[in-house]
Amino acid sequence: MKSYRKELWFEISQRRSFTCITPTVRTYVEESRVKEGLLLCNTMHITASVFINDNETGLHNDFEKWLEKLAPEKPYNQYQHNGYEDNADAHLKRTIMGREVVIAITNGKLDLGPWEEIFYGEFDGKRRKRVLVKIIGE
Amino acid sequence: MKSYRKELWFEISQRRSFTCITPTVRTYVEESRVKEGLLLCNTMHITASVFINDNETGLHNDFEKWLEKLAPEKPYNQYQHNGYEDNADAHLKRTIMGREVVIAITNGKLDLGPWEEIFYGEFDGKRRKRVLVKIIGE
Amino acid sequence: MKSYRKELWFEISQRRSFTCITPTVRTYVEESRVKEGLLLCNTMHITASVFINDNETGLHNDFEKWLEKLAPEKPYNQYQHNGYEDNADAHLKRTIMGREVVIAITNGKLDLGPWEEIFYGEFDGKRRKRVLVKIIGE
Repeated sequence: MKSYRKELWFEISQRRSFTCITPTVRTYVEESRVKEGLLLCNTMHITASVFINDNETGLHNDFEKWLEKLAPEKPYNQYQHNGYEDNADAHLKRTIMGREVVIAITNGKLDLGPWEEIFYGEFDGKRRKRVLVKIIGE
Repeated sequence: MKSYRKELWFEISQRRSFTCITPTVRTYVEESRVKEGLLLCNTMHITASVFINDNETGLHNDFEKWLEKLAPEKPYNQYQHNGYEDNADAHLKRTIMGREVVIAITNGKLDLGPWEEIFYGEFDGKRRKRVLVKIIGE
Repeated sequence: MKSYRKELWFEISQRRSFTCITPTVRTYVEESRVKEGLLLCNTMHITASVFINDNETGLHNDFEKWLEKLAPEKPYNQYQHNGYEDNADAHLKRTIMGREVVIAITNGKLDLGPWEEIFYGEFDGKRRKRVLVKIIGE
């Protein structure tokens, strides 16, 4: 069994944004030389997300508006967590979007559907954060 | 290490529905001859879901009503994504329900709890779509 | 390839609560002697959750309030599932929080970010339930 590990770092200049990371993850799959296996891609932070969806700006704006409706950022004092912090909404938003994705590797490639793209979702940016990619297989 | 891959195709006649796929996935586990390992089951489409919950019609109706409350289909023009498309709500609904499940395989069988059943959740049907099952183990 | 399986049992005295299980899961990783691999941690019940977030009481209270807003427990008769049961809300809440987490194992340890903690989320307690930990790797 082979295993491979890589960290992917971000420093997003806004509080919230979505960044497509599929091309980077593809290069990791090549580097790993794993032909058949599973790839885990997770954020290592609890106010961020890794998820799969469409690479379409209109939809990303819909996600932003929708997440603000389900878990509004303000007023900050609506959340007990916001004593020293102001990011309780980011914990909730990331819960909706998910922490991680698991993707099959087949014939040495990411086994994704035609429109599936991997995103890093930042909900409390302006600081350095990272995503973990772990691959096991043969 | 063994690996196994199978696609499971659907063409759902309604816009939304839930289909239990546990029996089919069980046959794939047998075919794979993997005794100890992990099984990934994910939709390959971004307006559909694979999730685990109860095989109970009343609950499925509750899910339908609840998802329509959290991410209503109409009016279509409430979503920026709905220029050429009308399925923005399906992207949001699938986000709530999840893209994938990972299930342990133990003694050659799906290692599920007593009420756990695997479902394909369609949120933008009337077209051919597929689920990927990937197994690795020994 | 090595594989390891363990069940972790709970009997929560309230209807809803969050229990940090990171220390227990760490001992399973040690017992498994897997150095590089993947760990699956999932609830085996469809009204409970395993998720990763912050070990902070204020945030847990925010989650409780937020989940009650998104999927209220009462009135019970708002849900079709609640004929003989009263736990439809628990199925919905667990869907938001997620069934499972997959975590990398690197150098024989859980490969978590600095604030990541694993929780068992109970949404329909007062009965015995369990979490499955499955590890594969080398």
